[in-house]
Amino acid sequence: MMIKIGVIGYGYWGPNLVRNFNESGLAVVRMVSDLRAERLSQAALRYPAIRPTERYQDLLEDSSLDAVAIATPVSSHYELALAALQSGKHVLVEKPFTATVEQGARLIEEAERRKLTLMVDHTFLFTPAVRKIKDLVATGELGQLYYYDSVRVNLGLFQHDVNVLWDLAVHDLSIMDFILGAQPQAVSATGVAHVDDQPEDVAYLTCYFADNIIAHFHVNWLAPVKIRRTLIGGSQKMVVYDDLEPSEKVKVYDKGITVTEPDGVYKMMVGYRTGDMWAPQLAMTEALKAEAQHFIECIHAGAKPLTDGQAGLNVVRILEAATASMRNRGQPVELG
Amino acid sequence: MMIKIGVIGYGYWGPNLVRNFNESGLAVVRMVSDLRAERLSQAALRYPAIRPTERYQDLLEDSSLDAVAIATPVSSHYELALAALQSGKHVLVEKPFTATVEQGARLIEEAERRKLTLMVDHTFLFTPAVRKIKDLVATGELGQLYYYDSVRVNLGLFQHDVNVLWDLAVHDLSIMDFILGAQPQAVSATGVAHVDDQPEDVAYLTCYFADNIIAHFHVNWLAPVKIRRTLIGGSQKMVVYDDLEPSEKVKVYDKGITVTEPDGVYKMMVGYRTGDMWAPQLAMTEALKAEAQHFIECIHAGAKPLTDGQAGLNVVRILEAATASMRNRGQPVELG
Amino acid sequence: MMIKIGVIGYGYWGPNLVRNFNESGLAVVRMVSDLRAERLSQAALRYPAIRPTERYQDLLEDSSLDAVAIATPVSSHYELALAALQSGKHVLVEKPFTATVEQGARLIEEAERRKLTLMVDHTFLFTPAVRKIKDLVATGELGQLYYYDSVRVNLGLFQHDVNVLWDLAVHDLSIMDFILGAQPQAVSATGVAHVDDQPEDVAYLTCYFADNIIAHFHVNWLAPVKIRRTLIGGSQKMVVYDDLEPSEKVKVYDKGITVTEPDGVYKMMVGYRTGDMWAPQLAMTEALKAEAQHFIECIHAGAKPLTDGQAGLNVVRILEAATASMRNRGQPVELG
Amino acid sequence: MMIKIGVIGYGYWGPNLVRNFNESGLAVVRMVSDLRAERLSQAALRYPAIRPTERYQDLLEDSSLDAVAIATPVSSHYELALAALQSGKHVLVEKPFTATVEQGARLIEEAERRKLTLMVDHTFLFTPAVRKIKDLVATGELGQLYYYDSVRVNLGLFQHDVNVLWDLAVHDLSIMDFILGAQPQAVSATGVAHVDDQPEDVAYLTCYFADNIIAHFHVNWLAPVKIRRTLIGGSQKMVVYDDLEPSEKVKVYDKGITVTEPDGVYKMMVGYRTGDMWAPQLAMTEALKAEAQHFIECIHAGAKPLTDGQAGLNVVRILEAATASMRNRGQPVELG
Repeated sequence: MMIKIGVIGYGYWGPNLVRNFNESGLAVVRMVSDLRAERLSQAALRYPAIRPTERYQDLLEDSSLDAVAIATPVSSHYELALAALQSGKHVLVEKPFTATVEQGARLIEEAERRKLTLMVDHTFLFTPAVRKIKDLVATGELGQLYYYDSVRVNLGLFQHDVNVLWDLAVHDLSIMDFILGAQPQAVSATGVAHVDDQPEDVAYLTCYFADNIIAHFHVNWLAPVKIRRTLIGGSQKMVVYDDLEPSEKVKVYDKGITVTEPDGVYKMMVGYRTGDMWAPQLAMTEALKAEAQHFIECIHAGAKPLTDGQAGLNVVRILEAATASMRNRGQPVELG
Repeated sequence: MMIKIGVIGYGYWGPNLVRNFNESGLAVVRMVSDLRAERLSQAALRYPAIRPTERYQDLLEDSSLDAVAIATPVSSHYELALAALQSGKHVLVEKPFTATVEQGARLIEEAERRKLTLMVDHTFLFTPAVRKIKDLVATGELGQLYYYDSVRVNLGLFQHDVNVLWDLAVHDLSIMDFILGAQPQAVSATGVAHVDDQPEDVAYLTCYFADNIIAHFHVNWLAPVKIRRTLIGGSQKMVVYDDLEPSEKVKVYDKGITVTEPDGVYKMMVGYRTGDMWAPQLAMTEALKAEAQHFIECIHAGAKPLTDGQAGLNVVRILEAATASMRNRGQPVELG
Repeated sequence: MMIKIGVIGYGYWGPNLVRNFNESGLAVVRMVSDLRAERLSQAALRYPAIRPTERYQDLLEDSSLDAVAIATPVSSHYELALAALQSGKHVLVEKPFTATVEQGARLIEEAERRKLTLMVDHTFLFTPAVRKIKDLVATGELGQLYYYDSVRVNLGLFQHDVNVLWDLAVHDLSIMDFILGAQPQAVSATGVAHVDDQPEDVAYLTCYFADNIIAHFHVNWLAPVKIRRTLIGGSQKMVVYDDLEPSEKVKVYDKGITVTEPDGVYKMMVGYRTGDMWAPQLAMTEALKAEAQHFIECIHAGAKPLTDGQAGLNVVRILEAATASMRNRGQPVELG
Repeated sequence: MMIKIGVIGYGYWGPNLVRNFNESGLAVVRMVSDLRAERLSQAALRYPAIRPTERYQDLLEDSSLDAVAIATPVSSHYELALAALQSGKHVLVEKPFTATVEQGARLIEEAERRKLTLMVDHTFLFTPAVRKIKDLVATGELGQLYYYDSVRVNLGLFQHDVNVLWDLAVHDLSIMDFILGAQPQAVSATGVAHVDDQPEDVAYLTCYFADNIIAHFHVNWLAPVKIRRTLIGGSQKMVVYDDLEPSEKVKVYDKGITVTEPDGVYKMMVGYRTGDMWAPQLAMTEALKAEAQHFIECIHAGAKPLTDGQAGLNVVRILEAATASMRNRGQPVELG
């Protein structure tokens, strides 16, 4: 049975959602809403069978639609997703999930009560690279985890409504949440805005976890070069994940430290060891295609999505705390 | 007139100092002291004309020596430099300058009172790459400065006595101090130790300056790959300084943002522009050679070195505050 | 007035031609022919307004069509293009232009006699990178040209009907022909086949020009990594063109040699000099879009295309001679 | 028993030989000869115990010397090595071995008759990277060999007496000879000279082997960038050897082609497969140190060196044929 979907928001990401749902063979997009007439004509031109509308309410009122995908600015996520759930639709919502922790918790509650599928579009979790890293960590191949360090910078378009953490770090936080499978105890963030009346464009975020695991994120809209690189250090092996590499995105280094306690000597000796490097082959699957399929399968099975509301909420909780910390020049914020 | 020099400490860096002073044609190393007999034999083998000794006091008591270079662990810098100044010697001291701000201030005072040259070995300030970047900033070619971001990581030997900030960030802080020519208002640092009874091996440091300039430093002894990269963003141009590049270490990007205020619209529009990239040719001079020469010239002329005690103190002040902040998970520390 | 176009061959490249003609705003694709039914259904699905047919003759017999684009294997180019010209259509033909020099000359003659536009799809000549290099050479910025060296290798699909020179070197020969604007005096090629009954999969080609200019091409279907790099050396400056670089595809090095004749010394001294490196900003225009537009403009104006039949023939002449040389292990072949 | 050595030629490479022999603990350099007084003073300054002389005959006449290392231009190798052998010295001679095949054969004969060690300084064969590649080929891990492709280019000093093949390709030919362990059947070379009265500065060389194995070499003194890269393709795996990589010099790609013969179909289908990439850890040993030690061990044991006269001769034979081919624009030259 084909799932019938409506898409709210046909800006940058909406067209990708429409294409992937339509090409999945499991769903069909029936309606698209956007406030901008020229975006609707664009959709109509490419997909004559889709009904365009400026009123998102039209989607919610159409009882033939099973699900709604929301690809609008974050400030509208809560209102739109809540209304969609209340009209009985399954919901896929763009990241960041919501603008506040409170909103996210409320949406989760609504979906659970109505037994509807609520999924957050954390696309990176459906890439072969991130899946491979998750496997390496989960099977213990890296040993005990030491740190997670990511850099995501380039000369980017300023978002008026959110700072650079909400725009860029959201990707890396979703990946970290998946790979570490743990919540940070505290965060500290720093950053500044260089344009008057605009949000912070450069930011740094540290997350403290149990067992001395530390995670750090560098995001920047003002960088002259594009960098998408994550280092993950463990006691046995270390990973470099470079998303800009065309083929070898994940490299596993058999490197680490050795701690020895020489006889009769008080101080420990810390040395290091180096071994082979290995770049596992990665599948060529498109992430968004896999994600669209997962959403539909969860709807059919009534199963909890990999990137459910809770995953979205985990990320929003860190972003909210980080923004508060950043306004106080790194003042740490404890998380429950 | 040849300057006669004694070198205290013949470990990793001492031999480089001896070689560069001897090859300068302006100075001659007469004595070397070290507590380890095998290091002294090494020095004697290579330089039959140098007198080796286990007592550094021998150098201070030799009235024929004009100057002393100190290449020992930081914990001994203060005591050794003070004694050297008090015995009338000019002093070149390894970085970090001292273990505390108080010690550094005391050494500056002593050198000034005795009109002796006191120089700190901030070698990078004598590299053609850093000089070129200083020029680009000083002449305003980058426009208004936005940020300074550096990464210095690799699988490195643990230092037992200092954390990774004092071992690695000291290089970048000395470069930043030179290029920005300003003192930070506050710092926030995070980091953790992964080996029991050992200092922090991964650390992140943010410095806040006036005019929304922000500087950030990532240092790590546990990284699988070696990275030595600094990004410097300005309103007109941006620099990437990669010290591992064999030839094009400094790249200047004609990139930036454009801020426009459309008629009758409240919100500003922020766009970006991209232009050519340019890698200036750099001289091939060896930094330590230029530094040795500068020390000798300052002694002759009674001039203040580029990397004087004050430059050393600026860096120690940040390191001291950063370590305090790091112990409190990023709690910001205001600097006078 | 919109140009009406038919496309023969809807395999790998045909869909790109259809899309670009349709999006040009200057032309409309009316018919598509292919021998494979599934390719025709694909075309029909995406473009309901296009008439699909298995008979290319249908396109030639439709008097409403102004032009035909031929995107079939090279062995059929001559027959299809000749028939198209004879039915009065303007023709854009995929590269390599024809399978032999004789065929190419015959097509040029036919097009000239009928005053029809005949263009060869040398797409790279419409990229900003190649245009920029052409400018650098034409304005004399590189000085006297010394050599042209290109490498185009990767793990690629074997073509059953042509060897790797005809499949890959054709790109680089078209670029070289454009940039040098001269014909080689002789060629020598080497290469082997590693699979029985299959064409050569690794090949090397040298072209000798007047004034000691030499050009060399390395093409390989069996390489573990993808390389697309061209070096162009001149007496004043040198260029590195790396088509895989996302942004700085063209780098200009102010490097060269200096020849001095010391007084009273018979032998000349050859030294080298190095200066800045410079990566000019390149426009973001899509090559095939510019090419489609150029074809249409040439039809309207009756102008000779940049990549006319003669340009196509220049490349075929080299490929034909190179294949002969390769069968004789590098035996040079003189070109008129 | 320490081997006593004299070194003829103290230019660029001679000092490296002196240092490595002296530091081996197995030999001591007693004399150094050079025609240039300033080079001799340089040697005397650094090694007071070494006797400097302008007459190489002094070394040959000193009966206390066991061996002689020859680091002079290739044109003098034959005369010097022959005289050294005739005076009963073991000989290590710089590469290229000799200026002609005839000279090389004569030296081998002389050494065999006198039962003296004759070794050619093919340093790369003592690097961990080349050893690792040899292992991969010898154990069959790459499968059946397809091709060997090397590039060695940079802006280099012109050699007045030899062309760029003799200066640069000599390195790669010695590596290829070691790894393939076979002699080419024929060679074809192309290249030109761009400076009057100077040798060829850009050259390309193809070697044909049995079983469709092909090897190609690109050498260039006029390149704007430095490249040192070799691709080796096999039916099972492929290697990229990049000598400029600081750590991962050798990468092994589990990539190749698959040849299938579909039922009832005449033509074979050639597809490709891709798997993991793997960079084996390499030892950190210095090549010249290992080579010096090997020379001394061969003298003691009367054993044939890995890089004996025959290895040197194999390379000279190819260089001689290649130069002849290059003078005839690629005309192939058959090798016995």
